[in-house]
Amino acid sequence: MGDIFDSDTEVTCRAGGTYDAKITDRWNALHGTPLGSYGLAVAVRALARRMPHPDPLSVSAYFLRPVEGGPAVAHTEVARTGNRMATGQVSLSQDGEEKLRAIATFTDLHRVDGDTSMFGGPPQLPPPDECVDPLDGVAMPGMSLLDRVEYRTTEVPGWLRGEPGGTPARDLWMRLRDGREPDPLALVLLWDAMSPMVLEIGRSPSTTLEATVHIRRRPARGWLACRVGTRYVTGGLCEEDMDIWDSAGRLVAQSRQLTLLHRPAPS
Amino acid sequence: MGDIFDSDTEVTCRAGGTYDAKITDRWNALHGTPLGSYGLAVAVRALARRMPHPDPLSVSAYFLRPVEGGPAVAHTEVARTGNRMATGQVSLSQDGEEKLRAIATFTDLHRVDGDTSMFGGPPQLPPPDECVDPLDGVAMPGMSLLDRVEYRTTEVPGWLRGEPGGTPARDLWMRLRDGREPDPLALVLLWDAMSPMVLEIGRSPSTTLEATVHIRRRPARGWLACRVGTRYVTGGLCEEDMDIWDSAGRLVAQSRQLTLLHRPAPS
Repeated sequence: MGDIFDSDTEVTCRAGGTYDAKITDRWNALHGTPLGSYGLAVAVRALARRMPHPDPLSVSAYFLRPVEGGPAVAHTEVARTGNRMATGQVSLSQDGEEKLRAIATFTDLHRVDGDTSMFGGPPQLPPPDECVDPLDGVAMPGMSLLDRVEYRTTEVPGWLRGEPGGTPARDLWMRLRDGREPDPLALVLLWDAMSPMVLEIGRSPSTTLEATVHIRRRPARGWLACRVGTRYVTGGLCEEDMDIWDSAGRLVAQSRQLTLLHRPAPS
Repeated sequence: MGDIFDSDTEVTCRAGGTYDAKITDRWNALHGTPLGSYGLAVAVRALARRMPHPDPLSVSAYFLRPVEGGPAVAHTEVARTGNRMATGQVSLSQDGEEKLRAIATFTDLHRVDGDTSMFGGPPQLPPPDECVDPLDGVAMPGMSLLDRVEYRTTEVPGWLRGEPGGTPARDLWMRLRDGREPDPLALVLLWDAMSPMVLEIGRSPSTTLEATVHIRRRPARGWLACRVGTRYVTGGLCEEDMDIWDSAGRLVAQSRQLTLLHRPAPS
């Protein structure tokens, strides 16, 4: 019933804060390796089992080594629990090697209320059914992620047409393809489920070093409107920021990642 | 000799990755309590002792309880070391209570090179000596931080004149007051050494939950040009982003913090 994300992030308690998981090959990105944020979603789901509050509010992850398909173990630790928030830590390991480490604060996002002041708004996108599927007719062998996540844009990105556009920013719609509605855990995955913006300036990313995601609300059902952009490429590094809005036009998440780039090819 | 920052962040190795430190009362913010990022700078300095590379490149901190004046202990752990980068973790505790926990990646920023592409530029500020000291004639008892850090702005911020301006953003110059030049560790402190932008919309912050700082270059000598802004206040939370540029006009750091706000006063 359209729950691939849920079954692929499932964890089983072994003992004392340790959880077993299996990294599947269904969320592979470029080069046929699992998306880093898929490993993170598995780790955060394990940590959630230890927390007295249900929803990730802030997650900061350091990607130490590439996540691979196969068994994984999540070691969790509680740092502090309070009435409204709790903070803990999780490490995801495979074959005894630590792949990623994250600290996260949890809360109950149902209880988040208070007034809203916006000094920026959601992307001004036409409705999804008036947009194009940028991957229509595009073959990306091994990139199983594209069977899981669906996109809509106003036009096919320049780099996909072989004409990088020069501006490393984009507005787009995104959702899980099988009809599973977005929730905080899906947002922990989706900030990374995107072609890197630097492809539009002819650069290619090598590794995400760090990423922090703030989940500001539980998203409404439906498509997510995303604004992604890189502003500064310096010394082989860039940041990529994403703001994610739900179908009701409310900000639901912000992410920022720090990414190491491959050196530009000699021209 | 103008080295208060260095002596106030000093750590002494006790044993096995544990360091002793002393939180002074010289970096107190509002309410007369130490700035969270001062505690973080002490913790990062301890972690630096364990790392094979000298400079923090990315630091993600979770602030669990308020840092107080007095002795502190930093427990450090190495997660992964590589030729170019190393990642570790540090917890700062006082009286057996964990105050903050951070993961950080270190590198040698002297070796960071490669081309630069900018899709945004530094704040367009007049030179510091043509700006005003926004705190000239302002008394903020107990806020010893203001004896340590110096600011220049084009005009006195509205909230300081009792006229909140409605826009939670500002460009400003900043430096350590005693002539100590900026370096990566100072940047780990300075992202937080600022009146919160939400004061300009009549809100007051309660706690910084999380902050991530990316240090992109070693800063040149002199004043730092900063652009600070909050875009979204939702459900009692806001983010505050800061971009920091050195006197040579190069981006040296980006920070983002997630802050819990006090409820608005009933009107």
